[in-house]
Amino acid sequence: MSRSDTIERMTAEIQMTGRLDPRDGWTADCCPIAGTLDTVGARSAFLLLREAYYGATRFEQFVQRAAVSEPVAAARLREMTEERLLERVPYRDDGQRTRHEYRLTQKGRELLPVLVAMARWGDRWLFPAGARVELTHAGCGSEVGVVLRCDAGHDVGTGELALRERREAA
Amino acid sequence: MSRSDTIERMTAEIQMTGRLDPRDGWTADCCPIAGTLDTVGARSAFLLLREAYYGATRFEQFVQRAAVSEPVAAARLREMTEERLLERVPYRDDGQRTRHEYRLTQKGRELLPVLVAMARWGDRWLFPAGARVELTHAGCGSEVGVVLRCDAGHDVGTGELALRERREAA
Repeated sequence: MSRSDTIERMTAEIQMTGRLDPRDGWTADCCPIAGTLDTVGARSAFLLLREAYYGATRFEQFVQRAAVSEPVAAARLREMTEERLLERVPYRDDGQRTRHEYRLTQKGRELLPVLVAMARWGDRWLFPAGARVELTHAGCGSEVGVVLRCDAGHDVGTGELALRERREAA
Repeated sequence: MSRSDTIERMTAEIQMTGRLDPRDGWTADCCPIAGTLDTVGARSAFLLLREAYYGATRFEQFVQRAAVSEPVAAARLREMTEERLLERVPYRDDGQRTRHEYRLTQKGRELLPVLVAMARWGDRWLFPAGARVELTHAGCGSEVGVVLRCDAGHDVGTGELALRERREAA
């Protein structure tokens, strides 16, 4: 092993295993991180999603609360509806014409951990005095963050992460 | 409460509490999600971070493995160094001139849950047959994802999230 490879193993947060080692032997096409960013990569899309989690359903709520322009909100909401993160549902207030609101789908709801992870990181590293709002566990009042956990139920710490080719799985 | 407010409470993933209720009564300035996206919002920045977690330290490794152009890699690595997600460390191979490599700082390391959350979401929703690689717990071999947990140690499910003003905290 070259000195460079040794340093790489020492500094990597995630160890390459099997045919993924060494890293230069394969290309990361079909990366699910890249795929997620292609689906919901724009800053404005994340802010509109934040407002959907906070309860916004109507176009004017999204525009005002996410503080984005109407054209930007319209474009992002249309893209997120096409990607099925939101669904467009007709509604009609008394005496008004039929309009549409946007509701989170299961696919959209499951992006919540991405936003919570961003919020906790931003809170810790960008707002030393603490951001203005905090996400809490309604049951006990403690602040909520994300932790890494494996499907067998173990908390996973740094130095315990390995990348594996899926077809090598048991 | 209007019909619209009632619908909003029913569909919100995160309940507004205290002076944050109703949502239209305050503006989300200093949002830590927006702050995080302003710090590391570009798709290429996330892909370069992915490669830093996989062990890349040298400029040419980042370019090749993240499949970004040299100018893009140079710009993003400079920005991430300025934001102190990476630190620039001199090294010298035998007989070569001194060059610099990029190593993750603690601030950069702590973005890992954001990328793991994106990877699991992308895996589940964009690659029905499973992405090519999977992140596993080295100890037991099970796949790794993220879960919401409060600082008191409780797993937090949907319907248990509340947003609170920080100065209302105990």
